[in-house]
Amino acid sequence: MEDEAIPSDPRMVARGRGGRLARRALRAGRVGAAAVVAGVRRAIPAYELLAEEGIVRLETAIDALLQEIGLEFRGDPQALRLWHDAGADVDGERVRFPRGLVRDIVRRTTPARFIHHARNPARSVAIGGSDVVFSPAYGSPFVHDIDEGRRYGSIEHFRNFVKLAYLSPWIHHSGGTVCEPVDLPVNKRHLDMVYAHIRYSDKAFMGSVTAEERAEESIAMARLVFGTAFVDTHCVVMGNINVNSPLVYDAAMSKALRAYARANQCTVVVPFILGGAMGPVTTAGAIVQSMAEAMVGVALCQLERPGSPAILGNFLSSTALRSGAPTFGTPEPALGSLIVGQLARRLGVPLRCSGAFTASKLPDGQAMLESAVSMQAAVQCGANFVLHAAGWLEGGLAMGYEKFVLDADFCGALHTYLAGIPIDDDAIALEAFREVGPGKHFFGCAHTLRHFETAFWESGLADNTSFEQWRDAGSQDSMRRANDRWRAMLAAYEAPPIDPAVDEALLAFMAKVKEDRPDMWH
Amino acid sequence: MEDEAIPSDPRMVARGRGGRLARRALRAGRVGAAAVVAGVRRAIPAYELLAEEGIVRLETAIDALLQEIGLEFRGDPQALRLWHDAGADVDGERVRFPRGLVRDIVRRTTPARFIHHARNPARSVAIGGSDVVFSPAYGSPFVHDIDEGRRYGSIEHFRNFVKLAYLSPWIHHSGGTVCEPVDLPVNKRHLDMVYAHIRYSDKAFMGSVTAEERAEESIAMARLVFGTAFVDTHCVVMGNINVNSPLVYDAAMSKALRAYARANQCTVVVPFILGGAMGPVTTAGAIVQSMAEAMVGVALCQLERPGSPAILGNFLSSTALRSGAPTFGTPEPALGSLIVGQLARRLGVPLRCSGAFTASKLPDGQAMLESAVSMQAAVQCGANFVLHAAGWLEGGLAMGYEKFVLDADFCGALHTYLAGIPIDDDAIALEAFREVGPGKHFFGCAHTLRHFETAFWESGLADNTSFEQWRDAGSQDSMRRANDRWRAMLAAYEAPPIDPAVDEALLAFMAKVKEDRPDMWH
Repeated sequence: MEDEAIPSDPRMVARGRGGRLARRALRAGRVGAAAVVAGVRRAIPAYELLAEEGIVRLETAIDALLQEIGLEFRGDPQALRLWHDAGADVDGERVRFPRGLVRDIVRRTTPARFIHHARNPARSVAIGGSDVVFSPAYGSPFVHDIDEGRRYGSIEHFRNFVKLAYLSPWIHHSGGTVCEPVDLPVNKRHLDMVYAHIRYSDKAFMGSVTAEERAEESIAMARLVFGTAFVDTHCVVMGNINVNSPLVYDAAMSKALRAYARANQCTVVVPFILGGAMGPVTTAGAIVQSMAEAMVGVALCQLERPGSPAILGNFLSSTALRSGAPTFGTPEPALGSLIVGQLARRLGVPLRCSGAFTASKLPDGQAMLESAVSMQAAVQCGANFVLHAAGWLEGGLAMGYEKFVLDADFCGALHTYLAGIPIDDDAIALEAFREVGPGKHFFGCAHTLRHFETAFWESGLADNTSFEQWRDAGSQDSMRRANDRWRAMLAAYEAPPIDPAVDEALLAFMAKVKEDRPDMWH
Repeated sequence: MEDEAIPSDPRMVARGRGGRLARRALRAGRVGAAAVVAGVRRAIPAYELLAEEGIVRLETAIDALLQEIGLEFRGDPQALRLWHDAGADVDGERVRFPRGLVRDIVRRTTPARFIHHARNPARSVAIGGSDVVFSPAYGSPFVHDIDEGRRYGSIEHFRNFVKLAYLSPWIHHSGGTVCEPVDLPVNKRHLDMVYAHIRYSDKAFMGSVTAEERAEESIAMARLVFGTAFVDTHCVVMGNINVNSPLVYDAAMSKALRAYARANQCTVVVPFILGGAMGPVTTAGAIVQSMAEAMVGVALCQLERPGSPAILGNFLSSTALRSGAPTFGTPEPALGSLIVGQLARRLGVPLRCSGAFTASKLPDGQAMLESAVSMQAAVQCGANFVLHAAGWLEGGLAMGYEKFVLDADFCGALHTYLAGIPIDDDAIALEAFREVGPGKHFFGCAHTLRHFETAFWESGLADNTSFEQWRDAGSQDSMRRANDRWRAMLAAYEAPPIDPAVDEALLAFMAKVKEDRPDMWH
């Protein structure tokens, strides 16, 4: 896959220093106008937590795990055949990997960076290198807002979150299963989900992975939008593949993975390891397992179709020791992410890592603290694709409306963080000191006036007014302000234009599939 | 000042990996028993944001600012005399510093690390090197809790926060002006504040800096506790000196600074620069100014008494561009802290940096997100003394009860963060993979059982239960849980023992000073 330039209109696409155009649009109150920030580029170094010795020790352990224990591929003879042909030791469904084999396959053909195309070319994003993409949370059966509390997800809620992501300048991607539309049959809801991403947004999106045919149909719908030839040579949809940790790929997952790879579409390979349950309780052990499992998935993409785009993912978690419940925003996964970033950079493949995680049921202090810790780890570890960057509540069981806009606002702050601090003569400002001198103020000096409007990140949701102003405006906490915000955004939403012929083709495709297949509800 | 070993009872002092003893005490519900964690040691590297070139550029600019513009010392002829004798160019009250002079004075005699003694030797903390000390917020005129809202501080509230800090295992230090006791005369309240630190806690504390005589009297009270000879050779109290930015020391500040240095007590020198007001609006310029101002203060301590302990402080802030109000927890100060850390390490002096900052009026999502960003910068930048680590609300105008315990809990998480991730054979756990294998769970394996109790940080305030458990327990948000916590802590508080003769001497000293001096109320 070639490393294409991202199509961009420089007047529309604000990258790097916080996306000023987008910010101005937002300040101007145009919450309904989707400001364009097509990804953000990292200008700061990653946080190098471990010295070389520790990294080599982990790599050696990953190779030992792959060689000695290996993984199982259950119910997918074609995957076993591919591994056998690649030189792995296949024993029944168990696959063991000669030292260095997986690493070599991953390195040989996995693109270090590729373009994930959106139907609006100005929204296409780069995955890999110094590019960072924020994508909504994924997979919640429930939704939450502070007025109505928690209830099951539906296609209506699904569309709402697609619209909110479309309208959020700091969310670059439309995501995948932004919530489960449990009001639709399980064997058909992927059609409505993919359609919602295409129809109500023009950002890049993810397709279904819950069965091979659903993956195929997600890709088929993308072909109706982008054209068959284009899709064969460009990434236009991605699938998020979970490993059945520890050390197992079941047939549904490995076949969906191969479906995306076969179509030259991107696969995100993500082990989810709850320490002490699906993997060792120690973080080092969980990292070794996670890397081994993800590398095997990325390598299988390369065996299915060399050069197909893939993202090495991970999801480290911690556990409440008394109850066994997962915990989030804790120190161990944050540090673990930094280490995973170091390992991924040495492999040279794009990384998915971390998200706005929390165990809280509300977008309260706990939620925002845990999410801040977790998202800072994402940008500090060098993640390229940050799934779950907005909306996550309750360990992923609920997608929150207020949480979504609060998280999206923090993604804006992280744009500025990623841009770093310029160190040049103008920024050092000796000229300003000469103008002002001891004991005077800098309000009116030329340097201040020149930089004032763009000097600092300014949240669109934080309250920085005086106590009296805040009290007189109703003493709102941040979740109440967030409630006002998402309601205003949805009220002002306008769908992006779509070619009526494409829309018709999509609707016809969906109608045909739905007609041909009886509903399944579990 | 010698680099003493910290007196410690290994059964009582839990350092490094999260202070397990303290954690267990807390879990056991003994909220009234002050678990002991005397500081925490950093086992992770600092986050190196800038490459050598950028750092050198900043150092060159700091030297240029000191040489060309210089600083003013207003109303303190003795300070001017010290600078003149050290080789500076003194012109009226303006002092200009030949290139390298300030840096040389700082480097020559400032201790890289020293012990800040507490009246309970097990609570003494090390300042500098890889040691990190968390201290409460400082200086708020108001206090806040969610039941009664915001009101003025008082000596009663002051004592409450001293008690809460005493009871918090992750807060190592009793702080200074934990809130302003506005019910006491301004020229006498320092006596009651210092007495409260000594009487209601046994952790190390800070004295007054608002006038030279108040600094002297704070030190005099410390002498009654520790003995005159001990105080002359050991740090037992510290003063937090604010620079009158830009580039001015007024007489009150430089004289209080010299009082602490003269007594061989620690001075924390802290410029507070609101970008665009008291300094350049660009972060690089604010860093240059802050470093120049703080280095001059630390150097003045060394001129007053070579070898006296000092901490190089800074307080970078950002501004809401529309209103000019200060903002907190934003990206620029977080990144700025990382750079300041790099500069401080090259000077070889202890660093004070960052805190649990927020502009929010409540301990809500905004507050905890902003504080998390700011506190992560503190531990990542290599700060040794973190003032404002707990309680800060509303840009420092209010000290919050719920905020205090929420922040203190996060300080606990940061203990685990600072400990890093062990990478050894036991943690890598190949043995566990051999025992468990693909598709099985790790619940009962030997490795899990061995590590389970100490594997993860577990918050004492976060809710990690299921939605149903949380709902049935009253659907509390984190500030409501924090309210229960601080009330329970104060209810269970028991004062640490104190020698009755010392107590009597302190009370007699205070009575004498109060009698001899008419009340001042402003």
